[in-house]
Amino acid sequence: MMKRKLTHLDREGRARMVDVGQKPASPRRARASGFVRMAASTLELVADGALAKGDVLAVARLAGIQAAKQTPHLVPLCHVLPLDHVDVDVRVDRERCGVTIEASVACRAATGAEMEAIVAVSIAAATVYDMCKSVERGIRVEEIELIEKSGGRSGHWTRSDD
Amino acid sequence: MMKRKLTHLDREGRARMVDVGQKPASPRRARASGFVRMAASTLELVADGALAKGDVLAVARLAGIQAAKQTPHLVPLCHVLPLDHVDVDVRVDRERCGVTIEASVACRAATGAEMEAIVAVSIAAATVYDMCKSVERGIRVEEIELIEKSGGRSGHWTRSDD
Amino acid sequence: MMKRKLTHLDREGRARMVDVGQKPASPRRARASGFVRMAASTLELVADGALAKGDVLAVARLAGIQAAKQTPHLVPLCHVLPLDHVDVDVRVDRERCGVTIEASVACRAATGAEMEAIVAVSIAAATVYDMCKSVERGIRVEEIELIEKSGGRSGHWTRSDD
Amino acid sequence: MMKRKLTHLDREGRARMVDVGQKPASPRRARASGFVRMAASTLELVADGALAKGDVLAVARLAGIQAAKQTPHLVPLCHVLPLDHVDVDVRVDRERCGVTIEASVACRAATGAEMEAIVAVSIAAATVYDMCKSVERGIRVEEIELIEKSGGRSGHWTRSDD
Amino acid sequence: MMKRKLTHLDREGRARMVDVGQKPASPRRARASGFVRMAASTLELVADGALAKGDVLAVARLAGIQAAKQTPHLVPLCHVLPLDHVDVDVRVDRERCGVTIEASVACRAATGAEMEAIVAVSIAAATVYDMCKSVERGIRVEEIELIEKSGGRSGHWTRSDD
Amino acid sequence: MMKRKLTHLDREGRARMVDVGQKPASPRRARASGFVRMAASTLELVADGALAKGDVLAVARLAGIQAAKQTPHLVPLCHVLPLDHVDVDVRVDRERCGVTIEASVACRAATGAEMEAIVAVSIAAATVYDMCKSVERGIRVEEIELIEKSGGRSGHWTRSDD
Repeated sequence: MMKRKLTHLDREGRARMVDVGQKPASPRRARASGFVRMAASTLELVADGALAKGDVLAVARLAGIQAAKQTPHLVPLCHVLPLDHVDVDVRVDRERCGVTIEASVACRAATGAEMEAIVAVSIAAATVYDMCKSVERGIRVEEIELIEKSGGRSGHWTRSDD
Repeated sequence: MMKRKLTHLDREGRARMVDVGQKPASPRRARASGFVRMAASTLELVADGALAKGDVLAVARLAGIQAAKQTPHLVPLCHVLPLDHVDVDVRVDRERCGVTIEASVACRAATGAEMEAIVAVSIAAATVYDMCKSVERGIRVEEIELIEKSGGRSGHWTRSDD
Repeated sequence: MMKRKLTHLDREGRARMVDVGQKPASPRRARASGFVRMAASTLELVADGALAKGDVLAVARLAGIQAAKQTPHLVPLCHVLPLDHVDVDVRVDRERCGVTIEASVACRAATGAEMEAIVAVSIAAATVYDMCKSVERGIRVEEIELIEKSGGRSGHWTRSDD
Repeated sequence: MMKRKLTHLDREGRARMVDVGQKPASPRRARASGFVRMAASTLELVADGALAKGDVLAVARLAGIQAAKQTPHLVPLCHVLPLDHVDVDVRVDRERCGVTIEASVACRAATGAEMEAIVAVSIAAATVYDMCKSVERGIRVEEIELIEKSGGRSGHWTRSDD
Repeated sequence: MMKRKLTHLDREGRARMVDVGQKPASPRRARASGFVRMAASTLELVADGALAKGDVLAVARLAGIQAAKQTPHLVPLCHVLPLDHVDVDVRVDRERCGVTIEASVACRAATGAEMEAIVAVSIAAATVYDMCKSVERGIRVEEIELIEKSGGRSGHWTRSDD
Repeated sequence: MMKRKLTHLDREGRARMVDVGQKPASPRRARASGFVRMAASTLELVADGALAKGDVLAVARLAGIQAAKQTPHLVPLCHVLPLDHVDVDVRVDRERCGVTIEASVACRAATGAEMEAIVAVSIAAATVYDMCKSVERGIRVEEIELIEKSGGRSGHWTRSDD
């Protein structure tokens, strides 16, 4: 069951960091995904690179991992979490004509790592854009979303439950 | 006219930062946008906050401005640019049922500020997600894209030209 | 009872980070405050903004929260602490003619969060200065101080105990 | 002559970064100061360290220099400036019973470096507090203020002009 | 016993952060060292400074401590660790004609702090280079290496065991 | 001709950032190198990865590029420079039995980019260590040094001139 109010706003509507001091640390996981749509001809350049050296995908993957660790310095009200694991998967998807990105983050903490997964996907996607923009400026990042999370009081959630 | 190859990859397909040492600094602008789709009931909570104190929108706007300045540390092959201006507009859009984000960035530099605009939108959108996720985990960030850029050798470009 | 020597200096007087490896993590809180003195006419501009959109105060509050998380990267000998909570309160105080700032920080750690509270206040105050300096360059930040701390071996302390 | 409105707020009262794109780069200087008041006995510990190895003062000086370079990432609406010079002076002042801090910053840019000087002083002061707090928790940072600035359209200003 | 494969690469050879979610936090220590070789005349300038105010050595020591805390943001696949202690020793070594650096790091975590020690030494060494390069550009950093580590499943290791 | 004193220390021997305000921006280049010595069997694992996906080398290259951009935040007295180009080359060297790293940095600035090149090599080397340490803890980073620099008042310098 979801809450009915924005926990990041106090009674007077001002932004605040949620106090997690009463919550024990527990194992938590979050998974998010995103898609970078591009022309088939651009995608082939990415894929060729991928076959040869994998660099567009490799750079995006690393950028995503590093961004996850920067999350509390990017999203103002996030907590600094001791991440146990960050995995960012970046793949050419010829059927949908673009690059799919999926990030998984795990930690043992008093609050979840959903934002780390979302930020990892967002910056990995921006990195794909950066590396391809000289060829196709109109590339579009689409559908950044949480797909699953587990742990904490609210338990397991998957997008399909919604 | 767009280039035919990925300038971020050298002849051997390895990632590299593009050398802009031969390019003079010139005024450049970039504008990007994004959309955060959410349930009408969540949007009303955001809007109510907005009417009272504006905080979800205000926090997202600031997060976007600050993220623009962090771009070279987030997107691995970006240059550090002396930004003259960053503006991030975050608005409730009841018609489309979500929050629209638009970032404008200006600099006088040897390379453009497209990535600063894209990153500002991406992190502003992630911040909207963060502040609303206790109410609706399924919120989706959609359509992060460049809408216009000017300056530099390639001149003026708008999405509608494409 | 306070210590008689500067624990940040070793026997030879060189700076060092204090080793907290033998101390268990325990709940700790710290509260600090500060004051930004300005002309009554400037304060009214801040207050008007505050009534309409609250932005000077809102921006300062966020800057303080984010700075608290950056403390170990700003104050050289501070530990990286897993903060459970950061709250920064920024208010117009017409009686004293200025803006009062108060920061509260909580963590469960082997060392206290006093510096996070002090840094949050300092940067929130600098942000108030930044946003008002086009109107009044002579604004002065005054009286940044710890007002209370609890937890750890030295227990509870308030300024009035001193 | 000072401006009559807060240039960091747009017409709707929302925070924004000021656009400096029409202003040429020109040499600018700013000088700020602050004072850290402490008990005479604490000051002697600092001074002794200073005579032997100078570390409290040396650490504070370095922390101030490094903080100046982080200013745009700490104060949300500041521009990233190419600083030509940062100097932070930290001295024992037995007469006033405390540590005086003065920071000078110079750059060639479209906007001034006042905030870099203010932030350098603020973090140097916080660092003095950090290194002395095990001995005296009630130490107070006082009177952080701009003392002089030159360059730019508004020209030369000193505190005494006010 | 050492592992036979690179745990930072997954089965397909892509970079990944190792998942430490199944490992309990335990006390860990790591010690690394390095050497900065320079001309005897340069070393005397460093030593004279050291005798008077200790600054080249003091700045290098602080830079090393701060770099240790930045390790996860510098080395892409490192975890963010809650460091209990960082000590960086920087000394003039007339016999070997250079500056020796040794860093010790301790934490209670699910993975070791070897990289924090290596990074602390590396940046302390680079800082010595920076402060002396106006006198001798050919200074060389040599022999950055782990000298000891303890804790975790693989237990105690010293260089001499190898 | 080299200077006879440490320009980073003022007359009283305290650390300071050199004032470059009187120096015009001019094109500058710097090149540095380093070597990571390892067992032949470890090198083959790196090389195999390199042949398949190139990841150890690719991750080190990216870490070096990103570290170059962080130099002023790592080396305390460095200026923030607008880098035009950073290139980091990381190669398996079977003859010397290790990985060679070379970084080239270019900027148009009032001071040189030597430190950016040194830091890029240092962090790329640390990253190679990180990715191989599960297989061979005793890997050693050797010979980080400037090999060439051009531009500025002191003109062109190569290691062989020394």
